[in-house]
Amino acid sequence: MMKAAKINTVRIAESTWSTYEPQEGIFDFSHVERVLDAMEEAEMSVIIGTPTYAVPAWMVKSYPDVLAQTNQGRRLYGARQIMDITNPTYLFFAERIIRKLMEKTASRKYVIGFQIDNETKYYGTAGKNVQKRFVKYLRNEFHDNLEAMNRAFGLDYWSNRINAWEDFPDVRGTINGSLGAEFQKFQRSLVDEFLNWQARIVREYKRQDQFITNNFDLGWKQGSYGIQSDVNHFQASACLDIAGVDIYHPTQEHLTGEEIAFGGDLIRSLKHQNYLLIETQAQGFPEWTPYPNQLRLQAYSHLASGANSVMYWHWHSLHNGCETYWKGILSHDLQENAVYKEIKKFGTEWKQLDSHLVNLKKKNKAAILVSNEALTGLQWFRINGSLEYNDIVRWIYNCLYRWNIECDILSPDTKDFSPYEFIAVPALYAAPSQLLHRLNDYVKAGGHLLVTFKTAFTDEYLKVYSNIQPSILSECLGVSYQQFTYPQQVRLHSKLFTGTQKKEMVQEFMELLIPTTAKVLASYAHPAWKNYAAVTGNNYGKGYAVYVGCMTSNTILEQILFHVLENTNLLEEREIVQFPVIVRKGINDFGKTVQYYLNYSWEKQTVLYTHKEGMNLLTQNKVSTGTYLEIEPWDLQIIES
Amino acid sequence: MMKAAKINTVRIAESTWSTYEPQEGIFDFSHVERVLDAMEEAEMSVIIGTPTYAVPAWMVKSYPDVLAQTNQGRRLYGARQIMDITNPTYLFFAERIIRKLMEKTASRKYVIGFQIDNETKYYGTAGKNVQKRFVKYLRNEFHDNLEAMNRAFGLDYWSNRINAWEDFPDVRGTINGSLGAEFQKFQRSLVDEFLNWQARIVREYKRQDQFITNNFDLGWKQGSYGIQSDVNHFQASACLDIAGVDIYHPTQEHLTGEEIAFGGDLIRSLKHQNYLLIETQAQGFPEWTPYPNQLRLQAYSHLASGANSVMYWHWHSLHNGCETYWKGILSHDLQENAVYKEIKKFGTEWKQLDSHLVNLKKKNKAAILVSNEALTGLQWFRINGSLEYNDIVRWIYNCLYRWNIECDILSPDTKDFSPYEFIAVPALYAAPSQLLHRLNDYVKAGGHLLVTFKTAFTDEYLKVYSNIQPSILSECLGVSYQQFTYPQQVRLHSKLFTGTQKKEMVQEFMELLIPTTAKVLASYAHPAWKNYAAVTGNNYGKGYAVYVGCMTSNTILEQILFHVLENTNLLEEREIVQFPVIVRKGINDFGKTVQYYLNYSWEKQTVLYTHKEGMNLLTQNKVSTGTYLEIEPWDLQIIES
Amino acid sequence: MMKAAKINTVRIAESTWSTYEPQEGIFDFSHVERVLDAMEEAEMSVIIGTPTYAVPAWMVKSYPDVLAQTNQGRRLYGARQIMDITNPTYLFFAERIIRKLMEKTASRKYVIGFQIDNETKYYGTAGKNVQKRFVKYLRNEFHDNLEAMNRAFGLDYWSNRINAWEDFPDVRGTINGSLGAEFQKFQRSLVDEFLNWQARIVREYKRQDQFITNNFDLGWKQGSYGIQSDVNHFQASACLDIAGVDIYHPTQEHLTGEEIAFGGDLIRSLKHQNYLLIETQAQGFPEWTPYPNQLRLQAYSHLASGANSVMYWHWHSLHNGCETYWKGILSHDLQENAVYKEIKKFGTEWKQLDSHLVNLKKKNKAAILVSNEALTGLQWFRINGSLEYNDIVRWIYNCLYRWNIECDILSPDTKDFSPYEFIAVPALYAAPSQLLHRLNDYVKAGGHLLVTFKTAFTDEYLKVYSNIQPSILSECLGVSYQQFTYPQQVRLHSKLFTGTQKKEMVQEFMELLIPTTAKVLASYAHPAWKNYAAVTGNNYGKGYAVYVGCMTSNTILEQILFHVLENTNLLEEREIVQFPVIVRKGINDFGKTVQYYLNYSWEKQTVLYTHKEGMNLLTQNKVSTGTYLEIEPWDLQIIES
Repeated sequence: MMKAAKINTVRIAESTWSTYEPQEGIFDFSHVERVLDAMEEAEMSVIIGTPTYAVPAWMVKSYPDVLAQTNQGRRLYGARQIMDITNPTYLFFAERIIRKLMEKTASRKYVIGFQIDNETKYYGTAGKNVQKRFVKYLRNEFHDNLEAMNRAFGLDYWSNRINAWEDFPDVRGTINGSLGAEFQKFQRSLVDEFLNWQARIVREYKRQDQFITNNFDLGWKQGSYGIQSDVNHFQASACLDIAGVDIYHPTQEHLTGEEIAFGGDLIRSLKHQNYLLIETQAQGFPEWTPYPNQLRLQAYSHLASGANSVMYWHWHSLHNGCETYWKGILSHDLQENAVYKEIKKFGTEWKQLDSHLVNLKKKNKAAILVSNEALTGLQWFRINGSLEYNDIVRWIYNCLYRWNIECDILSPDTKDFSPYEFIAVPALYAAPSQLLHRLNDYVKAGGHLLVTFKTAFTDEYLKVYSNIQPSILSECLGVSYQQFTYPQQVRLHSKLFTGTQKKEMVQEFMELLIPTTAKVLASYAHPAWKNYAAVTGNNYGKGYAVYVGCMTSNTILEQILFHVLENTNLLEEREIVQFPVIVRKGINDFGKTVQYYLNYSWEKQTVLYTHKEGMNLLTQNKVSTGTYLEIEPWDLQIIES
Repeated sequence: MMKAAKINTVRIAESTWSTYEPQEGIFDFSHVERVLDAMEEAEMSVIIGTPTYAVPAWMVKSYPDVLAQTNQGRRLYGARQIMDITNPTYLFFAERIIRKLMEKTASRKYVIGFQIDNETKYYGTAGKNVQKRFVKYLRNEFHDNLEAMNRAFGLDYWSNRINAWEDFPDVRGTINGSLGAEFQKFQRSLVDEFLNWQARIVREYKRQDQFITNNFDLGWKQGSYGIQSDVNHFQASACLDIAGVDIYHPTQEHLTGEEIAFGGDLIRSLKHQNYLLIETQAQGFPEWTPYPNQLRLQAYSHLASGANSVMYWHWHSLHNGCETYWKGILSHDLQENAVYKEIKKFGTEWKQLDSHLVNLKKKNKAAILVSNEALTGLQWFRINGSLEYNDIVRWIYNCLYRWNIECDILSPDTKDFSPYEFIAVPALYAAPSQLLHRLNDYVKAGGHLLVTFKTAFTDEYLKVYSNIQPSILSECLGVSYQQFTYPQQVRLHSKLFTGTQKKEMVQEFMELLIPTTAKVLASYAHPAWKNYAAVTGNNYGKGYAVYVGCMTSNTILEQILFHVLENTNLLEEREIVQFPVIVRKGINDFGKTVQYYLNYSWEKQTVLYTHKEGMNLLTQNKVSTGTYLEIEPWDLQIIES
Repeated sequence: MMKAAKINTVRIAESTWSTYEPQEGIFDFSHVERVLDAMEEAEMSVIIGTPTYAVPAWMVKSYPDVLAQTNQGRRLYGARQIMDITNPTYLFFAERIIRKLMEKTASRKYVIGFQIDNETKYYGTAGKNVQKRFVKYLRNEFHDNLEAMNRAFGLDYWSNRINAWEDFPDVRGTINGSLGAEFQKFQRSLVDEFLNWQARIVREYKRQDQFITNNFDLGWKQGSYGIQSDVNHFQASACLDIAGVDIYHPTQEHLTGEEIAFGGDLIRSLKHQNYLLIETQAQGFPEWTPYPNQLRLQAYSHLASGANSVMYWHWHSLHNGCETYWKGILSHDLQENAVYKEIKKFGTEWKQLDSHLVNLKKKNKAAILVSNEALTGLQWFRINGSLEYNDIVRWIYNCLYRWNIECDILSPDTKDFSPYEFIAVPALYAAPSQLLHRLNDYVKAGGHLLVTFKTAFTDEYLKVYSNIQPSILSECLGVSYQQFTYPQQVRLHSKLFTGTQKKEMVQEFMELLIPTTAKVLASYAHPAWKNYAAVTGNNYGKGYAVYVGCMTSNTILEQILFHVLENTNLLEEREIVQFPVIVRKGINDFGKTVQYYLNYSWEKQTVLYTHKEGMNLLTQNKVSTGTYLEIEPWDLQIIES
């Protein structure tokens, strides 16, 4: 059935350690070999996953210390991802199973690569051993200078000073966000270390033509949503040959393509290259059962973002276990179903087109800067209620997405911002001063910057800057503030906004901005706050920097964004269509431009094709400049020109 | 005051072990004897409860292991029902107090029976001893075949395989629903064992004319609501002479009689005989304070369901403790109050009529099949959000109730379905294949079956059937499905429905049905799902089987139900009135038919009496066929014919 | 900057033990001395706080037992207020740091007083040592009579009897509200003991002219809200020279002054004298960022309640720690901001007026009786859902506040009620019989009493009175009841109410009142409850007592209140204005009457001045009787006459 649907690759082995090592030191890879034999016969490729993210029962029974000690105490056996990834016993067994598995599989012809572990994070590990290492990490970080650490974290407060390293308290009880967030940063570094260690082992065995990847997962909110709190993907991906990701998302009326695009842009940006979509939903949760044609639209959307694979988790629905209702391509009856038939349909299309679609290269002029430290920082110091860092990131990202401005995702370690005409910086809460200086320099050199509230409020240790807010960036922004509040019935007053936008309320958070050199783009329509600015724009050097001091409606954000982009080429380059028609493009291996026109709606869409004459890859018809493209509901067109 | 109100029976002793055994091995039954003496003098009957469900402080202080180890750790002393019912120390003391109490009471003239323990369940007991026994239970269940167990539970998944019995992990952490639900089934069996053990002890002492009962309680949701997750009443009642139950329910505007009828039908079905209502509310919670006449209406409703007693918990409101606001007949001032006066009123009525009202026999032609395994299975694998198994059961039951179709409640062990013209099977999730075959046979032989979504999805180990859904039953139903989803703005298209029913939304869950031999009774009105059936009907053998693939409004369910029942005698036999007039009937000891007409509303109701000439028992007036019965608000009429 | 703003006092040292004793037995008070030197130079006063409410890391590391064992287990290090205040190790170290600190500071010229500990409560301490003492406390309380205790607490219920003191179970698991609430009362007494102990130590060192205070905090609900469950302020303040308090509250549109007035009235009543406002918000939480002029209005409101200081927590916003967003006078940039400028403005005003404003004496004729025991009692036995004791207290208090009837707050130990013309008794659930007799006597002697539902339902051990409800008070109230319920669509029928009040629903709780000698002031408009009274009034002796048997809307409560007050002088004495104009008054050190007119709104208010000719202190203009005072939004006027 896989062959018939033109499926050409499978991933195996990443979850079933207890099958391969049924008892300590007794190995049985017959299941793996059986699949490898079958794949060889079918001429299908295989990705081998190391099975280290789910430990066997015997290990926990004999060595209970392998289970992570978390803030909630010792984990009980049962779920995956419950072990202490620094525990030597665990690492001993993990190394042995990896080596045994590599011995059996690395030489096999159809094995094209290896996935080390799966959705790796630090699983809350915070036992004594981890805390001991954390103290050593801090001694190193602060050059053994306790006073420096007390000052950086502000530990005088509530008598939390640590006056001897021996007195270091159980960090799980801390109420000091600086200390707590630094511990999380340290915990994230354990993931880098763990993946590096696995990669080094696998590299001892793998062939030149085989790759190493991981299957990263995104921060979750009714699907793949934002960046992660428990792993720094930029750093963790350093040891990989190619980045991999799983992306899950709502469908039916809620299918927008936003998660596919955001996840793709993020993972593509990790190593500035194409990436593997290692998992995505076939049927997924009951509420995600796809409408007819949605699955095909989704698959093309992944390719349009730069994915070099679309792999489903999983082939067939499971008959037991807690993912029984996370359904695969086949339903539990293992027969052809609507989903399989649709996959077979576009599998066959791809078979014809794949050389035109893979390796799509992008050169985006827009970017968004994201930060794990800002994310966890804003968990310790919440903006307002349940509003999270990723909500701000997606508020900005989705706006660009709806208007078909493709972008890269940048890490705080980015040294060179010059490739970008426009950079958005949402809520960069924990902001090292060097990074802020680099952003100033970027604007000075002609860049266009959009910065939101909560940016540059604290340094990397979550210490609030004591000079001015937003610290350092106030230079390029030409604005500062001393106060902020939660809006109650506050609207915006601005020439930028029209009609109903004037009635839209400020949401969740607002800073009371006082411009220095900046012009006021919007001010607050409220008797108490009318003298304060809400949004400002400032010419700085050759560039222009806009500060958005409050959370606005989506349509108001769009007006602000257009204002920033007016002086760039981005507005001209972008397609004149907008969501629900999404346009993605890139250069393929033939050096040609491939343009996807994706219709995320029940309505047929008509789009004016304004580019050079091209070829509709799906119909193999020519498309002349000035033609109107008709795109059926939940359908797409691909033009190569 | 009791005598004046014609109260003739009291239940004592079930909660106050610490009073009867104030210190280990020191006994004092003077309180019991004082009451027995008083009752003897008053010529009132007494039911003696064994006091084993609440342990004394001294026992816990000296033997802390008697407290149950649960998923949340060791229980603290305080509440009742916190002990490990398998703990030998507890059992030693329990046996001794039972024997001592029996010695003192069994020979007393007015003691008519014994209640063993109270609202017995397994109280989450999951300590090491219990888990050891569970592993032995599994070894027996699977004939020591580990591979069979791993396969039945699907333990390969996430490396959960158990490759040696010694490796069996702490089951409290499991994420495998098959294993977890099997443990709950095992825990329920501990209740059977415990009650059996108590019954055997009591039987050594009791006279022939004395009975053994228990006071079962139902699953709770703002009152007695459905079947239990923590005890299998069908099995646990095997050791009893007569089943007993407590039923609590909302009153005031929310008094419908549904809980009284459902609880009564369930408990009457346990042993196919009349039952004892051991507890029900007098005043109960503050929000249940009854309107005038509601208490009398409720009391007759219990009799109408087949209860042979109506006992209140409790005589007077407690002045301390956590049930201070669960008020009894008397308020805290111990004086006559509105409730006492109403009880006195119908107590006096009953005194005249009791020989006509007790021992009401029913021969229902309709039944509902319920299952503890389906209940706990759907806790591990939820249908949608907070929707529970009992909600589906009650959705079906209440529909029958409102239309005055009386029914029995059947267990999955029922061997002979032939007495019933109609059987409803709500959400029978964990469905042994033999049971499904018996249901096929039932239809083939001429039965009428209504089956809802989620039935026959898995076997008894919660393994999803891999042949077809609904498995086995698809034979009689003539339908199958591969996909399901949560409805979003989905309506039904059907000739069965009229007017506003066409606008009513599908709720919570829908299966995308593909008929084989069945006719489509309703299909989905939604662009993505319009080709799928929602409700189907199938002629099979001499019978007819309807499958309801989604949750509908109550009024739509009624239409479906009428459709199934069209070819039975049930529609003709039922009264032509409907809720708020509820009609219940049966044969009394005189071989006459007793019909209750109960008015659950503020409005006076008029009902055409269509049966043979009879006698209005309350007024002692004759009632001719064709008379209009007038029933006052919250009042009733009883006709014997 | 402080001097410029006319700030003349600072409080230091209460939170930073780890700074003063960086290692066990090593002391360093240089920070304190540096501030003292600076203050001396600036001629500013200093209050020294003992730093005992937040322990250093070294103490917990070496002596982990100092952390409280609570119902949730042992606390982890991190937060403040986590220690067992009875632990001898903790007390040893606490005594030493207090003595060291006193030695360094008591003799300093500008040190005007000492705050012992901070916001002291019992922090849930419930370890074995605490429970041992509790048992001893009970043996004493019940004269070693176990039977008396079992009876008082009703421990027979659910087999909870304690038949030997050795059997006393872990009280943390109890489900007996009488026992549990008595434990809380005992825990509150530990706070009295702890503060007494600190006060005795401090008294050994302090000068005659130096005072001892504490910084009490109120029960919290979106700000300072009501009385405390975890400390009895009436008893705990006995060891203080002057009571201190912190008061925090919503601002912006939600600024009403209610919390300022309630908190002030409570703390002023503790010792029947002026009090210190030790903390209040400058900016506080983001949502509390004050509108222009609100901060000044608030400050005067505190003085108007009898505060002799207005101290902000805190000078500048913190750059780290969990109160980073609880902002001080200065923002994080430490520069002048809008808040500082406003404080500077009224600081300068005060400098002129302080001798007229401090030491304001009040002689209120109205009072509200509150009780910690009623508060915790109604946590064990909730009225309805989330409704709390403090909600009832504030329902009454706010009504008086809005109508400018100033009042004192009385403890249940009050012996002499004669100074008051009117006393309100909200929900006095746990009511000792002697207190109830005193209230009867008060009415008999001519007092006016308003009593609400839930009063006098139980004795001091939460045992429901078994004679009549409301017990004892039914004498002066002329009413009793046996039943109560939660209202569903119940309105009130009364001649007292007009217009829309007749449509307002009864809320949360209603008692079904049966008058004996009382007149019915309102009855229930509901078919089931129409024969019961809802509000009654009774002439008793020379007085009048009204019982409010249900929770009503605010406007209905106002009508009831006016009815009670009709025969008192209170209605005449009060200002004819009402909220949003709040009037407070008192006698200053010059023997003159000072009247504050505070405008809590965005609208300018005009008030007829009806008192003797006076002086507008802020403008220094004369004000004649019959003048109209114009009060700007969020502004005030102060007339001395």
